Amino acid sequence: MNPGSDQTEPKRRGRRAGGEDTKAALLAAAREVFVERGYEGATVRSIAARAGVDAAMVNHWFGGKEGLFAKAVLQVPVDPTVLVERLLDGPDEEIGERIVRNFIGIWDPIGGGQFAAMVRSVTAQSQVADVLRGFFVQTLIKRVVMHLGVSDPELRATLVASQIFGMGMVRYVVRFEPLASADVETMVKAIAPNLQRYLTGDLG
Amino acid sequence: MNPGSDQTEPKRRGRRAGGEDTKAALLAAAREVFVERGYEGATVRSIAARAGVDAAMVNHWFGGKEGLFAKAVLQVPVDPTVLVERLLDGPDEEIGERIVRNFIGIWDPIGGGQFAAMVRSVTAQSQVADVLRGFFVQTLIKRVVMHLGVSDPELRATLVASQIFGMGMVRYVVRFEPLASADVETMVKAIAPNLQRYLTGDLG
Repeated sequence: MNPGSDQTEPKRRGRRAGGEDTKAALLAAAREVFVERGYEGATVRSIAARAGVDAAMVNHWFGGKEGLFAKAVLQVPVDPTVLVERLLDGPDEEIGERIVRNFIGIWDPIGGGQFAAMVRSVTAQSQVADVLRGFFVQTLIKRVVMHLGVSDPELRATLVASQIFGMGMVRYVVRFEPLASADVETMVKAIAPNLQRYLTGDLG
Repeated sequence: MNPGSDQTEPKRRGRRAGGEDTKAALLAAAREVFVERGYEGATVRSIAARAGVDAAMVNHWFGGKEGLFAKAVLQVPVDPTVLVERLLDGPDEEIGERIVRNFIGIWDPIGGGQFAAMVRSVTAQSQVADVLRGFFVQTLIKRVVMHLGVSDPELRATLVASQIFGMGMVRYVVRFEPLASADVETMVKAIAPNLQRYLTGDLG
């Protein structure tokens, strides 16, 4: 090979030259590769190869793998580092509010985005949503809430559902530690007051 | 036909006679039919037909569709009506605690049961768990928690994750109303205090 060649010498021909073309090719390739291999398994190199562009372009256009993932799959319109800064920018006692506002502000306009669509498609296949609605919400949670005779029973039932599904996901499905292995007393102390507030507390 | 025949005349031959055989056949058929058609779509009649037994046996052995579903798919060792009574049996201000204790008491011994296994298998295919862990927890939530300098940062991060996933599921994936369409101020008032407690509050 030419001894004076660039160290980031492209391995294949047909690499796109225009910046917007490169960006679009990386986004399309990233959507495919992240879905095929997951976040950890998808390498910057493999995505760049799929797009037919140099791996350095990922850093150039998206600041790295995280930024590319956020843009391509989650469709977050801001860089994750910027999002973290935005969540931390303000009084610590209002961070819960900033999370909800940013979450809704980002995902509502795109209906949950590509990632929610992906989860929706797999849960639809397996009728998971239907089971959750029909059994957990209607048969269990709503009956409990109705017996309590509280205001906003429907809203409370869906709030309780959100926390119970999340607890089930983290403990039994995706198994995030330390919550997945926490003993029952730790779980009760941590989660029960939040469920209690959804059931009988002041929701504003 | 014989005019003196029983009104629950079996439609097919080969119906099992022994009680335990009938129960086992119904449980096996229910697992298949609920997964194929979902909770709403699966009828008592279709499950009984698959099992080759009379539909009346579902009421006899499981008290109806709910009870059969709870036993076959969720593997709840108690009847849903009994579970609702158990959750309501005690002071209203401790209902959050009873939910967490019953939830863990029922599902921990069976590792989340058949339903968690079903969700796990579909999320594993699509690498959803990996994306949630790699991106949401590591890249976003943990960074925020670390900046706050609070105790138990790992536990807090997974608690926040549980509520955020649950909120995303209810709002964008399974779309339970009224939470799915609630305006941002309602969401903030309802959910932000709970996230705030996980981030900076006393977890006991």
